[in-house]
Amino acid sequence: MTRARLRDLGIIIGQHPTGPHNALTDVPGVLVGHSTIIRDEPRIARTGVTVIVPREGHIWTDHAFAGFHSFNGNGEMTGVHWIAESGVLSSPIALTNTGQVGTAHEALTIYGHEKGFTDTWALPVVAETYDGWLNDMPAFHVKHEHVFEALEHARSGPVAEGCVGSGTGMICHDFKGGIGTASRVVNVASGAFTVGALVQANHGDRELFRVDGVPVGREIDHTRVPLPWGRQPPLGSIIVIITTDAPLLPTQCNRLAQRATVGLARVGSVGHNGSGDLFLAFATGNHIPGRSHEAQVALSMLPHHHLNDFFEAVAECVEEAIINSIVAAETTTGLRGNTAYALPLDELKRVWEKYRG
Amino acid sequence: MTRARLRDLGIIIGQHPTGPHNALTDVPGVLVGHSTIIRDEPRIARTGVTVIVPREGHIWTDHAFAGFHSFNGNGEMTGVHWIAESGVLSSPIALTNTGQVGTAHEALTIYGHEKGFTDTWALPVVAETYDGWLNDMPAFHVKHEHVFEALEHARSGPVAEGCVGSGTGMICHDFKGGIGTASRVVNVASGAFTVGALVQANHGDRELFRVDGVPVGREIDHTRVPLPWGRQPPLGSIIVIITTDAPLLPTQCNRLAQRATVGLARVGSVGHNGSGDLFLAFATGNHIPGRSHEAQVALSMLPHHHLNDFFEAVAECVEEAIINSIVAAETTTGLRGNTAYALPLDELKRVWEKYRG
Amino acid sequence: MTRARLRDLGIIIGQHPTGPHNALTDVPGVLVGHSTIIRDEPRIARTGVTVIVPREGHIWTDHAFAGFHSFNGNGEMTGVHWIAESGVLSSPIALTNTGQVGTAHEALTIYGHEKGFTDTWALPVVAETYDGWLNDMPAFHVKHEHVFEALEHARSGPVAEGCVGSGTGMICHDFKGGIGTASRVVNVASGAFTVGALVQANHGDRELFRVDGVPVGREIDHTRVPLPWGRQPPLGSIIVIITTDAPLLPTQCNRLAQRATVGLARVGSVGHNGSGDLFLAFATGNHIPGRSHEAQVALSMLPHHHLNDFFEAVAECVEEAIINSIVAAETTTGLRGNTAYALPLDELKRVWEKYRG
Amino acid sequence: MTRARLRDLGIIIGQHPTGPHNALTDVPGVLVGHSTIIRDEPRIARTGVTVIVPREGHIWTDHAFAGFHSFNGNGEMTGVHWIAESGVLSSPIALTNTGQVGTAHEALTIYGHEKGFTDTWALPVVAETYDGWLNDMPAFHVKHEHVFEALEHARSGPVAEGCVGSGTGMICHDFKGGIGTASRVVNVASGAFTVGALVQANHGDRELFRVDGVPVGREIDHTRVPLPWGRQPPLGSIIVIITTDAPLLPTQCNRLAQRATVGLARVGSVGHNGSGDLFLAFATGNHIPGRSHEAQVALSMLPHHHLNDFFEAVAECVEEAIINSIVAAETTTGLRGNTAYALPLDELKRVWEKYRG
Repeated sequence: MTRARLRDLGIIIGQHPTGPHNALTDVPGVLVGHSTIIRDEPRIARTGVTVIVPREGHIWTDHAFAGFHSFNGNGEMTGVHWIAESGVLSSPIALTNTGQVGTAHEALTIYGHEKGFTDTWALPVVAETYDGWLNDMPAFHVKHEHVFEALEHARSGPVAEGCVGSGTGMICHDFKGGIGTASRVVNVASGAFTVGALVQANHGDRELFRVDGVPVGREIDHTRVPLPWGRQPPLGSIIVIITTDAPLLPTQCNRLAQRATVGLARVGSVGHNGSGDLFLAFATGNHIPGRSHEAQVALSMLPHHHLNDFFEAVAECVEEAIINSIVAAETTTGLRGNTAYALPLDELKRVWEKYRG
Repeated sequence: MTRARLRDLGIIIGQHPTGPHNALTDVPGVLVGHSTIIRDEPRIARTGVTVIVPREGHIWTDHAFAGFHSFNGNGEMTGVHWIAESGVLSSPIALTNTGQVGTAHEALTIYGHEKGFTDTWALPVVAETYDGWLNDMPAFHVKHEHVFEALEHARSGPVAEGCVGSGTGMICHDFKGGIGTASRVVNVASGAFTVGALVQANHGDRELFRVDGVPVGREIDHTRVPLPWGRQPPLGSIIVIITTDAPLLPTQCNRLAQRATVGLARVGSVGHNGSGDLFLAFATGNHIPGRSHEAQVALSMLPHHHLNDFFEAVAECVEEAIINSIVAAETTTGLRGNTAYALPLDELKRVWEKYRG
Repeated sequence: MTRARLRDLGIIIGQHPTGPHNALTDVPGVLVGHSTIIRDEPRIARTGVTVIVPREGHIWTDHAFAGFHSFNGNGEMTGVHWIAESGVLSSPIALTNTGQVGTAHEALTIYGHEKGFTDTWALPVVAETYDGWLNDMPAFHVKHEHVFEALEHARSGPVAEGCVGSGTGMICHDFKGGIGTASRVVNVASGAFTVGALVQANHGDRELFRVDGVPVGREIDHTRVPLPWGRQPPLGSIIVIITTDAPLLPTQCNRLAQRATVGLARVGSVGHNGSGDLFLAFATGNHIPGRSHEAQVALSMLPHHHLNDFFEAVAECVEEAIINSIVAAETTTGLRGNTAYALPLDELKRVWEKYRG
Repeated sequence: MTRARLRDLGIIIGQHPTGPHNALTDVPGVLVGHSTIIRDEPRIARTGVTVIVPREGHIWTDHAFAGFHSFNGNGEMTGVHWIAESGVLSSPIALTNTGQVGTAHEALTIYGHEKGFTDTWALPVVAETYDGWLNDMPAFHVKHEHVFEALEHARSGPVAEGCVGSGTGMICHDFKGGIGTASRVVNVASGAFTVGALVQANHGDRELFRVDGVPVGREIDHTRVPLPWGRQPPLGSIIVIITTDAPLLPTQCNRLAQRATVGLARVGSVGHNGSGDLFLAFATGNHIPGRSHEAQVALSMLPHHHLNDFFEAVAECVEEAIINSIVAAETTTGLRGNTAYALPLDELKRVWEKYRG
């Protein structure tokens, strides 16, 4: 479903090199799975589920350090009280639409239980953004089976972007949006590591939309690419999941999570009131065992001053992932004939040439 | 289902007078509803749902200020990112067991939508504690209908305590626990107000259990009142909901929420690692309109130094509510024949007499 | 000492109009004062004090609501525990160098006491950034008298920028930096208000420096405008003070404070590890009396959804204030002959023309 | 100056054994130093400085993990933005009176610089409580030399309590208070560790004062032991410093810091509005090098579920330390002839016998 990626257009963001797939999955063991629900009968569905599965699924018993940041808390991400308290992530992460946080939460709980994980009553992370302008959200299209499907199909390697999984019904900077991802490789004295980001991008005004500082949004003629009228004021949101294989502590994960703000700001977000801009970062470099473990846990930590490159990498990944979500997404018509228009790639190239040619 | 309340035994906690029902519902417009699920076939159910409905249900459109505190974040309470951001509560509150946060979340979402509230996609508050020692939690007994039932039956006036609603399967300080409530009337120069607390009490060690400082727990013979063996280390938690009709600001609600800690500590909690000790406070004295409102909102605020009496009232309410949950609850046998024993009231009186007679 | 302001060069940032002086002081009653210390004997001084005085000095008894955000906590801002607890600002704000937080704190305490304010032991707000590359910081040049001088000279109207007051020894994005300010006028249905920002800008890498998205930093030849070699890795920081005359609540001030991040990010900050990026926002539209007040306090509040324009205004103000701090500052030589070079204005214009001409 | 310690009276609090000195200094390498200022001419001084020096002073270069909690933020503790960001403590801690935070801050800065520590511009931790009812605070009695003296005299072994150092002018639960300390030894599967607490106790109402649950305060005749009339409403505060030699992470230190609340609550605090109840916990079991370090840092971490005993130990230490501050302190007359009366030890024993004899 991916039309293109930003780099396909010859536009390079940032100074750091990407990982092999320029995706969250470049961090070893991190899998992404989608379940996409598109149908017109009996009620219109433009929705889905996307899951992020750390440690190839062993996260239920082999926990990872994590941190959280809320840039604007008009949204839901469950499971973060324990992350704030303990610094530990112990479940896969599910993303879906606003009305079905409960459904996905229940499905993750059942899934963990059926897999026989002893810590199954751990507190799963489920986050959401609103797709009710294109998707008939009160039809509650997402069922447990969609979450299970996304989990079962979670893979390493390239990640589908745009109108896929939980990104199916999303709108970003008044263009069709959805799922986007990117990665960066960071070299510091304490080692070489990968940083990845995945976004469910459903936020922002067109007027403020920028690509590497170029004011693309205001250069796109509204008569050629109509705005999603009637959707104002923006109810959208963005969920950002960041990961790295570096051995970071929870406090360091918090720091990475907050840096997603920089990526958002570069693309043109100001964290509008109606936006749930919630960011989670986890680091797989340390292994935290579950409750039966009785010995001290040996850990490693990067010196804090080595995080500068990670901060830049997070900013670049999030910036590029948001733009990728737009570049990938196709024009979509849904509920009540509402149409969210894709950003025309030739228009993007035209504006880019004008400012950077 | 309520055996007794602490005051029935002649034991008075604190210095402030109670409201007419010594319950959360003494705050005008605040309703409490239970749906209790007890059955043995086909799988054992000792669970349920309890709802707190502010403003007689108009909270969906006539919001209240609120605040949150996590004393120990090993638990779930949804909806708090927006409360932290905006200070606003805009939905009823549902309490249930750990495995069914999703179910209750979905049910509240559906309920709001079907009632036609324009802000129906608001982010509902659902909290949980674990009842899997008595209740066959993986049977997922709680259905949407139980949440709807609790909402429809929500009432002012006396509140059933102990083994009722979401308290059905709870264990507190190694005695049978559950729902408890209490209230206080506060007189300050800026007015007379009511403070109420409701707890879902499922936490604590018997050894540390105290009533007004009297070390009751360690005076109870384990051979006479067996411990819930095999439940250790404690997985339990406590959810505290505090409310007042005073015109408090969100920051002031945060302050009230944190004071629940004092009530817990007096009864013997130290916030054990496995405990999700999450506190929400809301104040109905100010009215915050929903999204269609375009004018400045007139508010009132108590001077901060008038909160001292509120802080004492919260401590007293929470302390008494926890003890009420134990005093009310009946011995309960559930999953795998596990039995959680009620605190014998004659034993409580005996120990009280010994120390305070 | 101000060379120029960004708008003098014909470069306009953002969509919102400025206030009359495009300065923090456009918010009625907010005064700014500087005390600049420049001397070479007996030890080299390139430092000073800048104060922000809300309510023309009556802030000691006529408090304002305020909020705080830490984008990167490698710095000091005192007085924020009480702001976090109560939402109330009750003292002027002093900015100085890292080594003299104590000096300024003591001076503010003495000043308040001598003025006879009953709440004089309130907890003053003092913040800092590091000027030790140009200033002989261990000489502790700042004395109480400099703080008093800045307080006595605090004025409304135009604000001196660049190498003045606490900005004297600052370096920003590897150019000479210092104090900068800007303002915006916001029109929402609930009224017309002014938003202002003042920064003490001492952070950032040149490579990342941008003006309205134009990558100015990487276009400046290092041989023509040398970097402050030996200062790496950056130890710098940025303090941001935001104010508005709107009647915002403390939670809303927190939201404004966090939006400073957007302004930083637009100019090229990623919140480097060594940077203390601390933001305070206060709103003068409500009046909170001191301790002797015994009645309810009448307040007003803007609807949360009216904050969108404020968020954009904060982003624009902070972005322009940072650039103003650079555009205003003159090349400065200080300790050990270290020289921080001003951004040549013709170079800035050249790069701007190249990208936006 | 110590009259007695609680255990001297045969009153044992809690279940865990103490360390050899029942003091903060039982944690290896943690030193405590006092500088006491008592004089009547030319102006009345009842004040001082107390310092806590981790790692026998090497903390400037061999950092420790730390965490912070604010139970009621009406007070000052500097240096915590960086602790919140990085989890790292890198300076000694100084306690003094409210008016001289600046003085102590400056002195610590100078001291570190003169000792030649490369990270000398680290952000020192200085905290305060108000002694202006006994001490002529506007005389600013504390000078740099008092801070230096406390640092130079910092020792391991027994710690003087009561009217000493920064505790000289303090009032606790309406009795004379001051410095108090206690420790506990914790045995968990991952090792045996010491937990210590030191308090500067200047808070609380007499009516609420309890010793192990016994309501001592309300049993003390006001005509026999007068209240500090005119000091109402309470302006007092309590600073708590907690330490352990366990290898805890920053998140775990946060958890310990919050547990100080339990100790306060047991003794009768509700966190009054005027009270700055600020808690810092640091753990010496891990070593975090300063900025020149370029390799990964090897760490150890206790499993989170081993913290239960630490939580109980913190509660017990803080509870006993507060009571020790009262039991140790002597009746003190100061400014304007104001007298803060010591709790008569025979009265304490009398009440104890009545309830627990």
